[in-house]
Amino acid sequence: MKVVLIGSGNVATHLGTALYKSGHTILQVYSPTTLHAKRLAKSLKAEFTTEPSGLHPKADLYLIALRDEAIGEILPFIPDKTALIAHTSGSVPLSIFPKLFTNCGVIYPLQTFSRDRKINIRSVPFCLESRNSSVNNRLAKFVSTLSDNIHWINSTERRSLHLAAVFANNFSNHMFVIAEEILRKSKLDFDLLRPLIAETAKKVQKHSPGEMQTGPARRGDSETIEKHLKELAKNPDYAKIYKLISQSIEDHNGPLL
Amino acid sequence: MKVVLIGSGNVATHLGTALYKSGHTILQVYSPTTLHAKRLAKSLKAEFTTEPSGLHPKADLYLIALRDEAIGEILPFIPDKTALIAHTSGSVPLSIFPKLFTNCGVIYPLQTFSRDRKINIRSVPFCLESRNSSVNNRLAKFVSTLSDNIHWINSTERRSLHLAAVFANNFSNHMFVIAEEILRKSKLDFDLLRPLIAETAKKVQKHSPGEMQTGPARRGDSETIEKHLKELAKNPDYAKIYKLISQSIEDHNGPLL
Repeated sequence: MKVVLIGSGNVATHLGTALYKSGHTILQVYSPTTLHAKRLAKSLKAEFTTEPSGLHPKADLYLIALRDEAIGEILPFIPDKTALIAHTSGSVPLSIFPKLFTNCGVIYPLQTFSRDRKINIRSVPFCLESRNSSVNNRLAKFVSTLSDNIHWINSTERRSLHLAAVFANNFSNHMFVIAEEILRKSKLDFDLLRPLIAETAKKVQKHSPGEMQTGPARRGDSETIEKHLKELAKNPDYAKIYKLISQSIEDHNGPLL
Repeated sequence: MKVVLIGSGNVATHLGTALYKSGHTILQVYSPTTLHAKRLAKSLKAEFTTEPSGLHPKADLYLIALRDEAIGEILPFIPDKTALIAHTSGSVPLSIFPKLFTNCGVIYPLQTFSRDRKINIRSVPFCLESRNSSVNNRLAKFVSTLSDNIHWINSTERRSLHLAAVFANNFSNHMFVIAEEILRKSKLDFDLLRPLIAETAKKVQKHSPGEMQTGPARRGDSETIEKHLKELAKNPDYAKIYKLISQSIEDHNGPLL
């Protein structure tokens, strides 16, 4: 397909690269920042534009990977309202597209994309949505060139999914950040925790995380919890997080078997 | 070595099994619960006792893998106070051993052990401590039969390490639990999040978690944060956790590059 890629952030970069490698043609990259537009366009052998009014008029697909707030703003500038068009956001509903976009949809890749991290795109779950079966077919055919993991998820479901992903990814990563900071204060190496983190994630690949919970809060070990809170006395923000999550673990889990 | 294994929980089971497989002899398993003592002893071809007074008098090592509160209680019953003895707890200091235990130490495996999960014990970091170099040598020689990943960590450092491990493992796992619950309410499958969780843990194997943070709080995307809080309105406990961690991410991370 001939694709106009709208955006130059992590999602645009990873999707654009995967599309290019799968044999699609990236006609053009749009980004308001010249440097970003130029850089990504170059790596995808594409043209670039920094002006919404400069968007290429003849694409098979306009793929919008912008910040949520920017999606609605770019729509008036799409030159062909009847072309296939999709955004990639977890939290923006399909209804962002006015009715005149007759072939609109959502292609939400449920993964965390960072610069300099290669992702096996074929195993990334892609959550698709559109307004009719003809667009569904076109989206599915297109996405199947990237991934074997396609799901039909409506806007309400996608919103929940995105919220769940924030807990599963951003918030768990922040737990690693706090752990790293605690270690740094004791001049201990984060390497010590890496096998533990790897195993924590591996465990829930086959099991339900509720069944895998361990630790002082799970055991109701109030003595250790008190020790930890004392340890965190100089950092009231982390102490607050410790208390709240420990309480939630205790509330959530039933009695120990 | 001829080992008396004191305890029958997850740590005792995993360590006992690893020791047995490495050619050590488990003389005896102690647990106050007959069923547990019997079961673990059987799988390790060992005797068992449910009475502290029944502990085998002639061991090369007494290895205590009990709940923290129970460690101090078993010490008076150790028949040979001069034998090598170690506990495996992250949060109990070496000073739990009275001075008459002349060959005492700590062997703290920094990993999460669950029943029915096999662990590659050779890559588990073992944190060791003792009161003198002769015991250090004996502990290191013993543990090197299990793991290639040995660290010298004193009681104060170990307490920080254990606290950090609670964040990195128990608390991140609870984020997965909350994510799973959010999905369940929308009748969505937890499988959707599994690749994301795997990648979140992989990312921090080579990078610092602070550099890997993404998501609405990292971007300062208050619109999405508001949407999510609205979504969590029926669950004020989770909304509170969402707010607190988002705030902590914003406080922690500098401006976006």
